[in-house]
Amino acid sequence: MCAHSFSAIAWSNHAVRILDQTLLPREERYLDIATIEDMAEAIRMLRVRGAPLIGIAAAMGLAAAAARMAARGDLSAQWITRAARELEATRPTAVNLRWALDRMREVASGGRRAGVSGRQLAEALREEAQRIWDMDAGMCRSIGEYGARLIEPGFTVLTHCNAGKLATGGLGTALAAVYVAAEQGKGIDVVADETRPLRQGARLTAWELSQAGIPVRVIVDGAAASLMAAGEVDVVITGADRIAANGDVANKIGTYQVAVSARAHGIPFYVAAPRSTVDPSLQSGDLIPIEYRGAEELDTAPGAGVVNPAFDVTPAELISAIVTDGGVLEHPLGDAIRTLMETSGSEGG
Amino acid sequence: MCAHSFSAIAWSNHAVRILDQTLLPREERYLDIATIEDMAEAIRMLRVRGAPLIGIAAAMGLAAAAARMAARGDLSAQWITRAARELEATRPTAVNLRWALDRMREVASGGRRAGVSGRQLAEALREEAQRIWDMDAGMCRSIGEYGARLIEPGFTVLTHCNAGKLATGGLGTALAAVYVAAEQGKGIDVVADETRPLRQGARLTAWELSQAGIPVRVIVDGAAASLMAAGEVDVVITGADRIAANGDVANKIGTYQVAVSARAHGIPFYVAAPRSTVDPSLQSGDLIPIEYRGAEELDTAPGAGVVNPAFDVTPAELISAIVTDGGVLEHPLGDAIRTLMETSGSEGG
Repeated sequence: MCAHSFSAIAWSNHAVRILDQTLLPREERYLDIATIEDMAEAIRMLRVRGAPLIGIAAAMGLAAAAARMAARGDLSAQWITRAARELEATRPTAVNLRWALDRMREVASGGRRAGVSGRQLAEALREEAQRIWDMDAGMCRSIGEYGARLIEPGFTVLTHCNAGKLATGGLGTALAAVYVAAEQGKGIDVVADETRPLRQGARLTAWELSQAGIPVRVIVDGAAASLMAAGEVDVVITGADRIAANGDVANKIGTYQVAVSARAHGIPFYVAAPRSTVDPSLQSGDLIPIEYRGAEELDTAPGAGVVNPAFDVTPAELISAIVTDGGVLEHPLGDAIRTLMETSGSEGG
Repeated sequence: MCAHSFSAIAWSNHAVRILDQTLLPREERYLDIATIEDMAEAIRMLRVRGAPLIGIAAAMGLAAAAARMAARGDLSAQWITRAARELEATRPTAVNLRWALDRMREVASGGRRAGVSGRQLAEALREEAQRIWDMDAGMCRSIGEYGARLIEPGFTVLTHCNAGKLATGGLGTALAAVYVAAEQGKGIDVVADETRPLRQGARLTAWELSQAGIPVRVIVDGAAASLMAAGEVDVVITGADRIAANGDVANKIGTYQVAVSARAHGIPFYVAAPRSTVDPSLQSGDLIPIEYRGAEELDTAPGAGVVNPAFDVTPAELISAIVTDGGVLEHPLGDAIRTLMETSGSEGG
């Protein structure tokens, strides 16, 4: 297989170009998104997904739409507030979305205070969106470097959902560790949980790792524990959508069950995420809002009900360590998170 | 919703009528199967499935095809041997298939020793197949009566795959307990694991429970542990494809992971199965042959591999008790199984 390069996100003239992830792995189609409504739709429909990437996409979408408003002389503080609110409402669980939009709102307030023109403000918003993207790419690389230290040569890494290039503005979070370990010649391979209902593991993780030439095998979500029992998994690494102050982690539904199984088999369970995923305002995971999605994602018999939470919460005690761009956080995770947030206060959000 | 009655299996003139389960829940289509080849195909393609039901279907299919051979004067001991071998080779994990065919082979040998005619032999085979079916329906009812005692009023029962009317010649195994508890007015409800890759929970368990007016909600397999953590599951009951002498249980892939999660949350985990599911020749679960199915059941990216075991093994220590037609087996399960098999030696197989 030839190595193939793709971009989950890019600037495109007066728009933002995204790879429509709902069509993968069958089709690699890019969409140019120019309005707030279209970006909100793309995020809600998971055309663009992954906690870090939706933050970047929202910021870039806001900047691109703001530039169009500015060109018509229509860019106002009120418009920015409304646009940010519309984007923020698309998905409730990932904190990166709010974090990125908070940064954009700060730029807007700063511009208003400074009395800059609409065009200058639009330019500043674009620069901020680019900065969020660049920062994320840098954070991914750091996470990858720290995470790769936890992966020994020949390891089989199990992952859930997709926390890779398709979920971020760079190498990913969980998969960044895999990419860096592979770069280091560690000869590793990956087991990807299918990740029902939307099959991000089978569709996205399998696709991007295959593109990179890293061996990957897909299993049904129910098979993870039995592979662990057979000694076929050395380590588990997943991403995170939100991390509470005590180290509890919200991530794709099924993550908690993998963590329970990893614990039962004595297998390390790591979470990898940038610092922007931490929400220090929430003391523990039970305060993280969980998105419930529609029954149609889980086609069943007429007359039967469906419970379709998109995320679950893994308590800190099941997590061996959290790999961040600022280093590997060890237990007690609450203390480690507090120290991390204090030292990165000036730089983070 | 009106209560609706269906038959997973029935005699049909010179054939066996099966409900094609691959089309459920969209379409309730029945197939008349007249040859060994067609029955082998139906079992292999899971048109008819469920450990007890494939034993019944194989026996009935053998009897129906034998009657046609006898009518042409072509029924021979050799033909029966070959036909039984072809049916037995369709699926390696469920022991009921072999058990049912062993009974049919004994009838054939008995007939040969007695020097009966082809027509008489065919008649004896049909009677034996009917007996296997009747016995299974009776065993289901007994399992249901014993199992219902474990379900308290208002309980939410989690089940995996389908171990109901669609898997047996009667009320089912795991679902027999649910049906009987519902008959007793216990006001229970069911959470059905979707059960990837073939979705027997979402397609079949949800369908048959809805037909019976029992409330059922479908979840993705990865959500079981998080429902348990939220206190939304009172008890787990699953079926079994084979039970080793020590009480280890092979069942649909994902069962082991549910058992691990149930243990972590202090929730009882029961297995329900007729005595014919016990294979006393296997000391422990690691000796049970596990069927691996094709990669096409788990559609993924080109270049990615697939590991697709159809079953896994849950060790006896994770099983709270095994509900059989002969009573509820408690720990130590190996001793309880030995006693059960000794007392039922004359009646079982």
